[in-house]
Amino acid sequence: MDNNYTTYDEGLMNSVATGRAWRALIAYSEKNKSVHMQNLFARDPDRAKRYSALFEDIYLDYSKNRIDDEGMSLLLDLAQECDVAKGIQRMFAGEHINITEDRPVLHTALRNRSDRAVLVDETDVMPAVRKVLSRIEKFSNAVRGGRWQGHTGKAISDVVNIGIGGSHLGPQMVTEALQAYAQSGLRVHFVSNIDGVDISRTLQTVNADTTLFIIASKSFTTQETMTNAHAARDWFLQQGATEADVARHFVAVSTNRNEVARFGIDTDNMFGFWNWVGGRYSLWSAIGLPIVLSVGFARFSELLAGAHAMDEHFRRTPLEQNLPVILALLGVWYINFLGARSHAILPYAEHLRWLPDYLQQADMESNGKQTNLHGSFVDYQTGPVLWGSPGSNGQHAYFQLLHQGTHLVPADFIAVVNPSHDLATHHELLLANCLAQSEALMLGRTLEQTTEQMRADGYDDDTIQRLAPHRVFDGNRPSNTILLRQLEPRSLGSLLALYEHKIFVQGLIWDINSFDQWGVELGKQLASEILPELNEGPAQGRNTSTRLLIEYCRSQTDKKH
Amino acid sequence: MDNNYTTYDEGLMNSVATGRAWRALIAYSEKNKSVHMQNLFARDPDRAKRYSALFEDIYLDYSKNRIDDEGMSLLLDLAQECDVAKGIQRMFAGEHINITEDRPVLHTALRNRSDRAVLVDETDVMPAVRKVLSRIEKFSNAVRGGRWQGHTGKAISDVVNIGIGGSHLGPQMVTEALQAYAQSGLRVHFVSNIDGVDISRTLQTVNADTTLFIIASKSFTTQETMTNAHAARDWFLQQGATEADVARHFVAVSTNRNEVARFGIDTDNMFGFWNWVGGRYSLWSAIGLPIVLSVGFARFSELLAGAHAMDEHFRRTPLEQNLPVILALLGVWYINFLGARSHAILPYAEHLRWLPDYLQQADMESNGKQTNLHGSFVDYQTGPVLWGSPGSNGQHAYFQLLHQGTHLVPADFIAVVNPSHDLATHHELLLANCLAQSEALMLGRTLEQTTEQMRADGYDDDTIQRLAPHRVFDGNRPSNTILLRQLEPRSLGSLLALYEHKIFVQGLIWDINSFDQWGVELGKQLASEILPELNEGPAQGRNTSTRLLIEYCRSQTDKKH
Repeated sequence: MDNNYTTYDEGLMNSVATGRAWRALIAYSEKNKSVHMQNLFARDPDRAKRYSALFEDIYLDYSKNRIDDEGMSLLLDLAQECDVAKGIQRMFAGEHINITEDRPVLHTALRNRSDRAVLVDETDVMPAVRKVLSRIEKFSNAVRGGRWQGHTGKAISDVVNIGIGGSHLGPQMVTEALQAYAQSGLRVHFVSNIDGVDISRTLQTVNADTTLFIIASKSFTTQETMTNAHAARDWFLQQGATEADVARHFVAVSTNRNEVARFGIDTDNMFGFWNWVGGRYSLWSAIGLPIVLSVGFARFSELLAGAHAMDEHFRRTPLEQNLPVILALLGVWYINFLGARSHAILPYAEHLRWLPDYLQQADMESNGKQTNLHGSFVDYQTGPVLWGSPGSNGQHAYFQLLHQGTHLVPADFIAVVNPSHDLATHHELLLANCLAQSEALMLGRTLEQTTEQMRADGYDDDTIQRLAPHRVFDGNRPSNTILLRQLEPRSLGSLLALYEHKIFVQGLIWDINSFDQWGVELGKQLASEILPELNEGPAQGRNTSTRLLIEYCRSQTDKKH
Repeated sequence: MDNNYTTYDEGLMNSVATGRAWRALIAYSEKNKSVHMQNLFARDPDRAKRYSALFEDIYLDYSKNRIDDEGMSLLLDLAQECDVAKGIQRMFAGEHINITEDRPVLHTALRNRSDRAVLVDETDVMPAVRKVLSRIEKFSNAVRGGRWQGHTGKAISDVVNIGIGGSHLGPQMVTEALQAYAQSGLRVHFVSNIDGVDISRTLQTVNADTTLFIIASKSFTTQETMTNAHAARDWFLQQGATEADVARHFVAVSTNRNEVARFGIDTDNMFGFWNWVGGRYSLWSAIGLPIVLSVGFARFSELLAGAHAMDEHFRRTPLEQNLPVILALLGVWYINFLGARSHAILPYAEHLRWLPDYLQQADMESNGKQTNLHGSFVDYQTGPVLWGSPGSNGQHAYFQLLHQGTHLVPADFIAVVNPSHDLATHHELLLANCLAQSEALMLGRTLEQTTEQMRADGYDDDTIQRLAPHRVFDGNRPSNTILLRQLEPRSLGSLLALYEHKIFVQGLIWDINSFDQWGVELGKQLASEILPELNEGPAQGRNTSTRLLIEYCRSQTDKKH
């Protein structure tokens, strides 16, 4: 970790950081690091046009980046050197690119709208994908149409999705993003946290006889999810329902038929997916069931189609015009050559408020890795900390640091041209603020400009001398802007696939497996050791810090009468 | 910004980074940067006891940090060199330490429970503070007791707070944190974003005749807040109320009497505060009104008392035992000597889910600065990017990066020993997970340990050789753990004051003004320029990137029939 690399074998002989392209980028960065973006625009009148692209209803501007044609071309050299084009083809071809788990990576098959076969170990998976989709369609139509009824004969009014990580963040984000398309009278809730507050407060707002629970856990053993699922089941029975009624109110997204049946769920209402779908790429699968229940199968199909359109772009477009590749390279540029450690996602859209959380998992769980494909620790930085929240709120919170802090934080501004409501003034202000922020970050304001403006505003010389330095903005702070014509299923699908593929390309460059997550193992293992110690006292070998923490918990726990 | 410093005068002669303590810390960090925390514990059996503290019902463990007594003592030297003790006294004494705005910084006066006078320019402000508090008490009792009624004679069922930044994040965070104490039948909503979705969806859930709106804006001119306030007022009148009814349903937290009256609010229902209260420190003032309405004045007083207790600790305790000072120094250690750029806030408590957002403003708006008190750009890093979300959710999202990523991300784990609900199993799992994560981050698991464990689990040698490197954790990743006996008003108040003062101490060390926010100016100014251009087209001088973005918006805007 940071400045503290340990390599335990000689695998780094192959490090990308010893390659020609990487070294050329270091030289380029040394030479150009104090070039201000204002100069890049000044010397290249077509810059904004060339550094932007239209993808269907999505406009991407990446001209506000600290790079010119020479730099872009070096980054493309790096992509060549890392065989990015081949990596892309290998993914779509179903090769086992998730090498540590010996699996293909084929979430793209879930949204394959073409009649192309997708082979996994020589079998076309498309028939199975279509079959699950058609079961989801039928089931969701029954619930939304009121034909699927609770045990007292009433239609479903509330859906509670119980799942965590990929079984939570994707469905929650999309359901909220497409709120304008939601069926009225059908509320969708999400419960994920093992903190009992989460399930308790949700159950307080629903009625047992009109609520449908979706238990989303591939293995049906995820600790948080199963603990919450059993709490929901207990509550359901306490409300006067019987064991036999469970099957009308609980369905599963899982592959563990035995456990699902043992819970009391009719396995006809179990929707499966496959081991070539990673949790953080699963919203396109049956994990998307809450989305379908909210917006209907037709809209969900549009979401898939939008993602598929981006998949096709990604698969077929030369690297230099390939949008996920471009965004990936710009990220690599800041992380590996200009010292960025985090990346901000700033959706100027309240309906996209869960997007940063969703992308946090998509990015950080994929690329927060330090072991390369050859089993060595890398000697360069990998995936960034990803963070953010919907604008314009952030302007009144942390934008101070983005404008005048000492850290380089590249940002993606995301906005929607046409709102789903009628408050036109609100929306114009929102858009104006979004565009103004990226411009302010880029332009900055020199001491001379600040002084001049303060003089024009009538400040006296003493005040100007004292204050102006604090009102200087050095600018040159990079961002991308992504404008969606409208926040609709198709463009949202494309947007999400854009980020998925960006992350994958960065993984290819960093020579890591973006599709496993071994880093979550150790904490799980220690949690199961510590759990009994909260009652019985810390084990002999337990580290003294944790030991005292356990003792404090034990000594302060209120005894229940 | 990062590696790209520009100084435009010679003020850096005084830079803290040229001082003796700073240089000693650099030498110490070079010498110790590969020391593993496991060794620190091994060679010092009392470490956990000495590197922990009890403050009333709050237990703070800071032993899982990459530092020993020598390092702590060097950090304390740095604090001495930066005159931290004097800085603390100057704040409490009401000196104008907010030099760019020529104001004292006295949010501590808002929660001063002693009979000590607090002088601002020779006048004791305590009588005015107490007077506002007593008006808040009276008003909140009337609303909560049903004596304050809407225009149709019904009691208030919903409070909608309209405010942004400090007028939103603090009240929202505390109201949620103290949900277990909330008056049932009185719901509190928060509207902040200029995105019209925010106010629209909130208004859909309330009834005009039982809703009380709080308009929170010191100047009563904040763009987002006033736009939302007018939308609420318009909606209110459309629901059948009259102009005269506005005064029964709208109150203000503001100091602009004229504008408040012009809006139709009875200035008897205007609650003020003072220019020595910064927005991000204002939840203790009348800005806390939504908190009082939710939990009652007595609980709010306990919150103030908890903060006051921490203030007294901060004011009176020698630096080496002073908790805010210790946390501040540890932060400086990672940022300035070990290259950390962000800091994670990980509350293992769903009720603390807004704490990271709140602290984002508190920290990043305070210390995201690059101009020092003498008007020079600093030549060292200042405040970090602060981010996080409630556990255990994060474990299934971004913890991969915390455990195996390449960036150093110090973290604060915050948990509560006794839950507010009866799901005991849930809570034990929550606590076990929290304690396990900090331990896993610290301990790690070597290649040898991993190999051994895989052998015990029955893996063959080939698999072990291929997989083990991916299952290695280098550990040595630092964290603090803060345990609250219970999430109650007093301990919450202390916790928040702990962070406030930590941030202030870091500002003292970095020689910056933590209490202004000039960085938000430029974006505001450009937004007002760009707003008309969305209709009229971009102005001549507008940068070509923003120009094309404006053109795209104009060309894609749906014309309303």
